[in-house]
Amino acid sequence: MPYLALLRHGQSQWNLENRFTGWVDVDLTAEGEAQARQSGALLAQSGVAFDKMFTSVQTRAIRTGSLALEAAKLAWLPVEKNWQLNERHYGALTGLDKAETAAKHGDEQVLVWRRSYDVPPPPLEAGGEFDLSKDRRYAGVAVPATESLKLTLERVLPYWDAAIAPDLKAGKNLIIAAHGNSLRAIVKHLFKVPDDQIVGVEIPTGNPMLIELDASLKPVSVRYLDEARAQKLPALPA
Amino acid sequence: MPYLALLRHGQSQWNLENRFTGWVDVDLTAEGEAQARQSGALLAQSGVAFDKMFTSVQTRAIRTGSLALEAAKLAWLPVEKNWQLNERHYGALTGLDKAETAAKHGDEQVLVWRRSYDVPPPPLEAGGEFDLSKDRRYAGVAVPATESLKLTLERVLPYWDAAIAPDLKAGKNLIIAAHGNSLRAIVKHLFKVPDDQIVGVEIPTGNPMLIELDASLKPVSVRYLDEARAQKLPALPA
Repeated sequence: MPYLALLRHGQSQWNLENRFTGWVDVDLTAEGEAQARQSGALLAQSGVAFDKMFTSVQTRAIRTGSLALEAAKLAWLPVEKNWQLNERHYGALTGLDKAETAAKHGDEQVLVWRRSYDVPPPPLEAGGEFDLSKDRRYAGVAVPATESLKLTLERVLPYWDAAIAPDLKAGKNLIIAAHGNSLRAIVKHLFKVPDDQIVGVEIPTGNPMLIELDASLKPVSVRYLDEARAQKLPALPA
Repeated sequence: MPYLALLRHGQSQWNLENRFTGWVDVDLTAEGEAQARQSGALLAQSGVAFDKMFTSVQTRAIRTGSLALEAAKLAWLPVEKNWQLNERHYGALTGLDKAETAAKHGDEQVLVWRRSYDVPPPPLEAGGEFDLSKDRRYAGVAVPATESLKLTLERVLPYWDAAIAPDLKAGKNLIIAAHGNSLRAIVKHLFKVPDDQIVGVEIPTGNPMLIELDASLKPVSVRYLDEARAQKLPALPA
């Protein structure tokens, strides 16, 4: 039965500054690099023979994955990068820090955007500093101007179905190095988490979630690799 | 017309110790990491819009490529890893340093193995410390016990034809992050370098060779990106 490890990127410069990041290509901090290496050591200790890694096209997830693979002596694993594993696009909130966002929109409204399943923030202004629609890496991609968690899930799942699920069904053990919300989308799908509960699921950084799946890709076990720092796990589906 | 950048890995621990490395998976030194980042800065300055990178399944080439891409803000590029871009397998010389090799085989014989085109060293002993035939990354691969440069070329070129040439013919600008001898094989093929001259072609570390190709993949220009440190270039084919 295949294993799937979900690996959330370590601390980025904008995590540190408490700014909405989304699709902006911010790099890891030194702390984030250490969390990535720690994740790699945990993956190696798990004893699972991983076959392949998937990641987004954002530097902080790619580097987290690379540093983890190097720490696990698995730098040779095939790695597939796809924009559909990117972080949720935070629209007009992109680049704002906590204080700026609250001043501009009010705490209550911000909480709705952060914590609701299907309410996207206002769209990012076209042509501004954070507009990536002309970035060469997104050639041929309809770059969103904003996303709710629901919209994030709606572009993660087609990639899951087309690229990731077939490898798992072929018995491959996979790692996905990605972001808080693209990983939430996968957890919601696998564990059938209801819409109003998924924002409560938070994969910690530096502590991969290891999921064992049956042949139909139903989770049969789930744990954090560092049990001492384990957080609440999603319930196994019936 | 497509561009091809050949990027040789930076200094490894065994380069530093002057030991025959071949397929042993030795990591970069700090100096080798700096050379990789320098190569990335040169790739970025070249102004070529690279589309994809190819590399071997050996950590020193993979990390050189990753560090170069990061320095060039191209971490998002697709990367394909294949054992056929590995370094030449040095057979029974693997792991020996210069003094050990000379004591065991004599300077003259060692020069023949290093400098001839088609004379492989004696085969590596099966089951020893450096035998990689049971390494998981080589599952399904007939791991050689020794290779001449000729034998190296004979497994590099089928991969060139199957994976790299089609991308170039489709107009993609490519980077190959690899090893002294797998890159020599590609240079020999592209520039039609005679058998007795190819060992004289040495791509320096930290200074990518940029080749412009025509539609039939014949080189029309070639230069080192750091012209101040340029070495002898292969002559353009007639």
